[in-house]
Amino acid sequence: MSNPTTCLLVIGNEVLSGRTQDANIKFLAERLGAIGMPLREVRVIPDVRDVIVATVNEVRQKYDQVFTTGGIGPTHDDITSECVAAAFGVPWEPHPEAWARLSAHYIARDGNTDAFNPARQRMATMPRGATLIDNAVSIAPGFTIGNVHVMAGVPRIMQAMFDTLATRLKGGDPVLSRTLTGIGLMEGAIAAGLGDVQAEFPDLDLGSYPFYRTAGGGTAIVAKGTDQDAIDRAMARVATLMESLGVEPIEGEIG
Amino acid sequence: MSNPTTCLLVIGNEVLSGRTQDANIKFLAERLGAIGMPLREVRVIPDVRDVIVATVNEVRQKYDQVFTTGGIGPTHDDITSECVAAAFGVPWEPHPEAWARLSAHYIARDGNTDAFNPARQRMATMPRGATLIDNAVSIAPGFTIGNVHVMAGVPRIMQAMFDTLATRLKGGDPVLSRTLTGIGLMEGAIAAGLGDVQAEFPDLDLGSYPFYRTAGGGTAIVAKGTDQDAIDRAMARVATLMESLGVEPIEGEIG
Repeated sequence: MSNPTTCLLVIGNEVLSGRTQDANIKFLAERLGAIGMPLREVRVIPDVRDVIVATVNEVRQKYDQVFTTGGIGPTHDDITSECVAAAFGVPWEPHPEAWARLSAHYIARDGNTDAFNPARQRMATMPRGATLIDNAVSIAPGFTIGNVHVMAGVPRIMQAMFDTLATRLKGGDPVLSRTLTGIGLMEGAIAAGLGDVQAEFPDLDLGSYPFYRTAGGGTAIVAKGTDQDAIDRAMARVATLMESLGVEPIEGEIG
Repeated sequence: MSNPTTCLLVIGNEVLSGRTQDANIKFLAERLGAIGMPLREVRVIPDVRDVIVATVNEVRQKYDQVFTTGGIGPTHDDITSECVAAAFGVPWEPHPEAWARLSAHYIARDGNTDAFNPARQRMATMPRGATLIDNAVSIAPGFTIGNVHVMAGVPRIMQAMFDTLATRLKGGDPVLSRTLTGIGLMEGAIAAGLGDVQAEFPDLDLGSYPFYRTAGGGTAIVAKGTDQDAIDRAMARVATLMESLGVEPIEGEIG
């Protein structure tokens, strides 16, 4: 009945230092919602062994599926893979298929066997029992072990990996969404009525999002859930509330 | 000696559903680094009472300072303030100064006392003992209680609040940063040498960030730390490494 729950671990000092604007949370949030595996928590954690191991072990117990992004490249700060092995208490060892793919790729590209050097060999070293997640962009695969799916941090590569991975994930009912926007609508004016609608539709998630623009602000009301009929009935109530405040409900997000 | 550690809680279903692209993590990460309070963890959690209370209590023990964004508006899903009160085990009650400000604002704007309605009164209700964080944009203040700083989720408002808050935060040594970019530089080629430099400068955080562009990719090497001299010495080593690979080191990020 109820949808599987998911958690995302964004692993990398670069997001915590502000060097990098994360782009993976929104992508995965949308894609996971669409396949009925709503994201319940995200943690951004540093490239620190003890933190990664403890966090992986905490969230893999707590959620049905866990996704990680970042830390699977060839450099000293890429330690996600060995930390996931430690979390599962299994050896971190050459993965025959990953090894074959990467070795063939680098040797063919550079024309010498030295190209598949120890740093690159680390990208073919995985927790024992890992299943590969193909990487059509830059070859080095991600992997799945248990309920943990380990992907790259570079958005283009992560997205390609997720496209592959998604085909073997068992989701639930897709999370549907409908938005009504009221220009000039003030949250504080619709709040009481909106609370009543939420109370009447406890299985929906009703959100209220004010926006501020130089051209004039307003509020978007979003209903999310797995029952389209309930969403439509709730939104009919919201539309009536807006109209009672002299605001015309506009279907969808604006701007 | 060592810098205070900080944690950010992004509270809101809208980030977990992918409706909203978070813009607060990067802003706070940069600003906190600059005042020597580096961000060590971010959690994105839903508007669910038990989750918020438990998470606030966990991270306020674990980190020196905690910042929250989101969930302090007037609607039913804005429950951050009452959850923080519950986490601290103090009453959630009208804050006299916040009450006075908001009441004056709404009554003046709308010309009637009904405008400061129960929904808006919630924004003036806070944990007992809270210190206000001014909001120059939309009046309704954030607040500090203990080591927890509660701010709005709308980026423009959060940023205005943080500008005020920052003046009373006691930071440490600013986190400094220097970047060298190598066009055509492959991570797998510089990885071994870079690992040696990291080992030699254990107090620095050396990161390697590949980028992919249609015009050709490369790798940016970033050194972060509080000792400018150490950063410069490490980066001189990195520049030599790049040159030994036939790549010209470019100061800073590109593109």
